[in-house]
Amino acid sequence: MDEFELIRRFFDRKGEMPGVVVGVGDDGAVLAPDDAKQQVQVIDTLVESVHFPADTNPADIGYRAVAVNLSDIAAMGAEPRWMTLALTLVDSSENWIDSFASGLFEAAGQYDVALIGGDTTSGPVVTVTVTLTGDIEPGAALLRSGAKPGDAIFVTGTLGDAAAGLKLLQVGASDDFLAQRFLRPTPRINTGRALVGTANAAIDISDGLAGDLAKLLNASDVGGEIDIDKLPLSESLREYFVAEERHHLALCGGDDYELCFTAPIESVTDIAEITCIGSVTKARGLRCKRDGDIVVVDNSGYRHFQ
Amino acid sequence: MDEFELIRRFFDRKGEMPGVVVGVGDDGAVLAPDDAKQQVQVIDTLVESVHFPADTNPADIGYRAVAVNLSDIAAMGAEPRWMTLALTLVDSSENWIDSFASGLFEAAGQYDVALIGGDTTSGPVVTVTVTLTGDIEPGAALLRSGAKPGDAIFVTGTLGDAAAGLKLLQVGASDDFLAQRFLRPTPRINTGRALVGTANAAIDISDGLAGDLAKLLNASDVGGEIDIDKLPLSESLREYFVAEERHHLALCGGDDYELCFTAPIESVTDIAEITCIGSVTKARGLRCKRDGDIVVVDNSGYRHFQ
Repeated sequence: MDEFELIRRFFDRKGEMPGVVVGVGDDGAVLAPDDAKQQVQVIDTLVESVHFPADTNPADIGYRAVAVNLSDIAAMGAEPRWMTLALTLVDSSENWIDSFASGLFEAAGQYDVALIGGDTTSGPVVTVTVTLTGDIEPGAALLRSGAKPGDAIFVTGTLGDAAAGLKLLQVGASDDFLAQRFLRPTPRINTGRALVGTANAAIDISDGLAGDLAKLLNASDVGGEIDIDKLPLSESLREYFVAEERHHLALCGGDDYELCFTAPIESVTDIAEITCIGSVTKARGLRCKRDGDIVVVDNSGYRHFQ
Repeated sequence: MDEFELIRRFFDRKGEMPGVVVGVGDDGAVLAPDDAKQQVQVIDTLVESVHFPADTNPADIGYRAVAVNLSDIAAMGAEPRWMTLALTLVDSSENWIDSFASGLFEAAGQYDVALIGGDTTSGPVVTVTVTLTGDIEPGAALLRSGAKPGDAIFVTGTLGDAAAGLKLLQVGASDDFLAQRFLRPTPRINTGRALVGTANAAIDISDGLAGDLAKLLNASDVGGEIDIDKLPLSESLREYFVAEERHHLALCGGDDYELCFTAPIESVTDIAEITCIGSVTKARGLRCKRDGDIVVVDNSGYRHFQ
């Protein structure tokens, strides 16, 4: 099976795709964006053995490649529209590709994202790059740079689960809930949309809360104080890990793909599954409190090339 | 140097970028597309040792990653606007990245393309994925599917040079012209723009003329006949390769990134550097003539996973 046959068989799904004039199969896709909207464009790459274990179920890889990009779209407050896929494969086992495509289209289908084009290549490890384009009301995008002293700091969902899930997978243990939190993160599209007009700044938590919140605070030229005892933790995390470890996972563990945002506390009403964990300060830097004392966070999150 | 520092230092270039509301540095870019236009979006990946030799000058890799995408934009007749970059690196040698970025921005600058975002990751080989978005008058995109019986078939520039250049590089020989044709292809943006309203169908030649023209003819539900003696060949190609070999390179060699298009012959005026090589027929299939006889083309171009 060559690359053209591969694309035809697994990735060229006809169907209702609003705004897509020409999809997969030409030199490029042709799109009719909504005139009244601005666009948000994001890109994320997953590399085998770096971002996922080599033996990961291909359906989970496909799902995750879309979900991590959707998470960036959510952090901007945008509505996802279409995506392109660059897929580097080691071989072309039909079962593998079929499974990968099923996960990819499962995530895309859940959030009404159309696959409009792509490129398949061969290489030494599986590498998946997805570019996702969304749209948003002009001037409404949630940036990292708008946090104001006095804002409350919120996070969605629970923290540390994905890093915990990966940790268990790596030692051959498994907890279904934690594993799923790593393999199939939930992009917070609806929350992102609800935050438009409410949040002053937002970021998605991909490299760990401490590191990502620090980026938001730096971009906004402010600081912040968070209370470690307020971090939302799942039952599974509490069950498998002792207090020190779960706090570390919640603060520094990557791959949660929850949102962290700041907003005047009184403006945040009717938004489900969020927790206030601290507040924005005029003084720069991120301070973490525990039992009323400031503690040092010794790892600012997972960074490549350190 | 971590990935955030890397992005700041090498890829975050401020400056006039029409339509770019927020560029590199947030969860996503925010764009204000031209209301009166449709968009064209393309994506292409280059993998070390697959698409370029491992010892290629990083500036050439950066240049080429942009140029091959621009070629797809040209084949659609669109005007390039902005791009995103997914860069997988093996290590983070500053010299390498600096050189890569210089080539990337050189190509981008020549065609007024803004880099709006990206993702850097680590992996076992250098992998570069660029997504490029252009715009075009509504309904004007040049598709592969519009060729009509009686159309003349044209190509831009000369054919086979890139494959010849790569061949020489691989055996340790070198001809400056041919090497440059491989390393720094010329995207035919101006020609693509000039073909809007004139050409009935277009494709860029990335996998070899025979294979790519066959794709265009199949998409249009027609056939074609080309005259091998009419294929435009460079002086360098004639100098280094005997007739059989240069015909093979011109028909089946990849990476030229010239355009192939079909149009009524009388409608094509004032377009520089093009050659008529044959015509579109109602009968399906691609026939190649030489000295008046039909010859078999034994390799339909370079395909992955064969």
